[in-house]
Amino acid sequence: MQVHGTPHQSIWLDEQNRITIIDQTRLPYEFKTKILSSLEDFARAIEHMEVRGAPLIGITAAFGLAMTLKENPSFENEEAAATRLLRTRPTAINLKWAVDRIRAIIKPHHRKDVASIALTEACSMLQHDMDTCEKIGDFGLEIIRRIHEEKTGKDKTVNILTHCNAGWLATVDWGTATAPIYKAHLNNIPVHVWVDETRPRNQGAITAWELGQQGVPHTYVTDNTGGHLMQHGMVDLCIVGSDRTTARGDVCNKIGTYLKALAATANKVPFYTALPTSTIDWQVNDGILEIPIEQRSPEEITFIQGTTAHNDLEKVRVTPPGSPVANFAFDVTPAHLVSGLITEFGVFEANASSLKQLRETIEKP
Amino acid sequence: MQVHGTPHQSIWLDEQNRITIIDQTRLPYEFKTKILSSLEDFARAIEHMEVRGAPLIGITAAFGLAMTLKENPSFENEEAAATRLLRTRPTAINLKWAVDRIRAIIKPHHRKDVASIALTEACSMLQHDMDTCEKIGDFGLEIIRRIHEEKTGKDKTVNILTHCNAGWLATVDWGTATAPIYKAHLNNIPVHVWVDETRPRNQGAITAWELGQQGVPHTYVTDNTGGHLMQHGMVDLCIVGSDRTTARGDVCNKIGTYLKALAATANKVPFYTALPTSTIDWQVNDGILEIPIEQRSPEEITFIQGTTAHNDLEKVRVTPPGSPVANFAFDVTPAHLVSGLITEFGVFEANASSLKQLRETIEKP
Repeated sequence: MQVHGTPHQSIWLDEQNRITIIDQTRLPYEFKTKILSSLEDFARAIEHMEVRGAPLIGITAAFGLAMTLKENPSFENEEAAATRLLRTRPTAINLKWAVDRIRAIIKPHHRKDVASIALTEACSMLQHDMDTCEKIGDFGLEIIRRIHEEKTGKDKTVNILTHCNAGWLATVDWGTATAPIYKAHLNNIPVHVWVDETRPRNQGAITAWELGQQGVPHTYVTDNTGGHLMQHGMVDLCIVGSDRTTARGDVCNKIGTYLKALAATANKVPFYTALPTSTIDWQVNDGILEIPIEQRSPEEITFIQGTTAHNDLEKVRVTPPGSPVANFAFDVTPAHLVSGLITEFGVFEANASSLKQLRETIEKP
Repeated sequence: MQVHGTPHQSIWLDEQNRITIIDQTRLPYEFKTKILSSLEDFARAIEHMEVRGAPLIGITAAFGLAMTLKENPSFENEEAAATRLLRTRPTAINLKWAVDRIRAIIKPHHRKDVASIALTEACSMLQHDMDTCEKIGDFGLEIIRRIHEEKTGKDKTVNILTHCNAGWLATVDWGTATAPIYKAHLNNIPVHVWVDETRPRNQGAITAWELGQQGVPHTYVTDNTGGHLMQHGMVDLCIVGSDRTTARGDVCNKIGTYLKALAATANKVPFYTALPTSTIDWQVNDGILEIPIEQRSPEEITFIQGTTAHNDLEKVRVTPPGSPVANFAFDVTPAHLVSGLITEFGVFEANASSLKQLRETIEKP
């Protein structure tokens, strides 16, 4: 996607075989790229959230392991590097998946070859992520196109509400929830995006920044606003991401997603989630009963970071000292509130039989 | 209510006939009281939101007018003072109501008497507000008591979710949505309050501070959290305030209220609003179609105020420059999502026929 008019990925291998990332800790205030060299560079980039989003974290770890093996291809070094990388974000499933995958692939090979095999695999994972997101974009585009064509009246702009950042900065390119939006914009379908602030981490600021860079019209609103907008016909569809989708179509995503799904259903607004099929957990059915919801540090709520008049980053306290704070990070939207799942294999209904079909499609040899 | 263990009102007349307020601009970080003397003191206190909340604004303006007349009881001064006071918050209906009421009452009297008549009336308005809130508290208490008695299991704590600050600081004492909570706490019914942050102005911080001062157990959460809590049985009832209630029971309240009402209905959690009957607009039926929703300054969203590590108040920017922001201040919860209206005349169902009964009760000579 574009940054200041130039195409970028969130992570890339340059011509001198160096890995560069966008340092997302300074976004949306400042755009800075950063070359990662040592294992510590990679580990800290994940730990300090210079890279974020499940797919991107996994790919960064894969490159981190590959680059470390280039320095020293010994098994001991591989073991130490894997341990260090896995410690960075213990709950990130993609991180473990990516590290395990690289290790499994290099396992049968001579130590002198493992570095280049690992690098090739990391590059292929990167390419696969881009392809997956682009396919999600293409399938989602058709939903937006249909709504655009069916809209009557003078203004046929499709108004889309999104929550959190399931954008290209959480993947390598395109994003998941944003991919259909970027595709629509590139196909000259007029779109306008309502961007939820997404407390407590305000990922809406990242989404707004992304959309601004692509020239996609958008408006930033507090999380409280979506119900009112839908009640007044100001939203044509919702698209959100998914951190984990169950075998019957329940969607675990950023806290607050469920409230928007309720409002969408009450106001007959289609509510879609966009997801790579890798986030489907085939072992889980009832997301509400079976998925434990992570509680994160209260400090994410009690303090807010922003820029001062002098453009310095500053944290301020916004809650009364002494008041307890609870920080539930995700919620589960039951399948019956979800209009459809936009995947790289097409759009599927959120129910067990439709997802069974999807699984058969994925597993087809 | 208690502040640092001492009973307080949000505004009071002291023994030397001086008006004192709590300067709410420093809350929840610092507790400061302030004596208002000149007309400008009163006008600025309203303008700069040192006092806030419809009932409190009205009463402050009434005292402001009375105190000005004590200095100079001429009609010209009355006229100038009224103009100055009405300019402070042009959309505050209570403000106009209070100023008009004082002026109507003093109109037939000699100029030498108007100051003392105005002061007596302002004091009576203050007492009436306290009585109204206390009655709301007593009626709401019975709802909480019933839920407490019906709860099974070991922990019979009643978990109550509230949105925004319909607390005693928005009135003279007790508050509206908080009055039943304070009454329950004083009656030794175990309660715990989930306090919505209430973006963009974070009035949840004020509510949390209030509850903390009374020793009421509470937990501060982001506005995104309530759906998840209700889905998991962690909320027994919701109580919110109302800025305007229609003749059929639609409730216009702080933006985001509607989303919580949807979640409450979906999860069979009772959803009550607490309101003085003065906020019922008998001319309006369909709140969604008929009530225009105020849009406030985007700066309330783009900037957040809090305290730095050095305890200074600082504003930081939290959105990307260049991204448009919309700030809808209220939304409308349709009557069918409201379990009941807790008023100073009792608890009424949110429908036209029940509200007609309420109106007859109010108008009974």
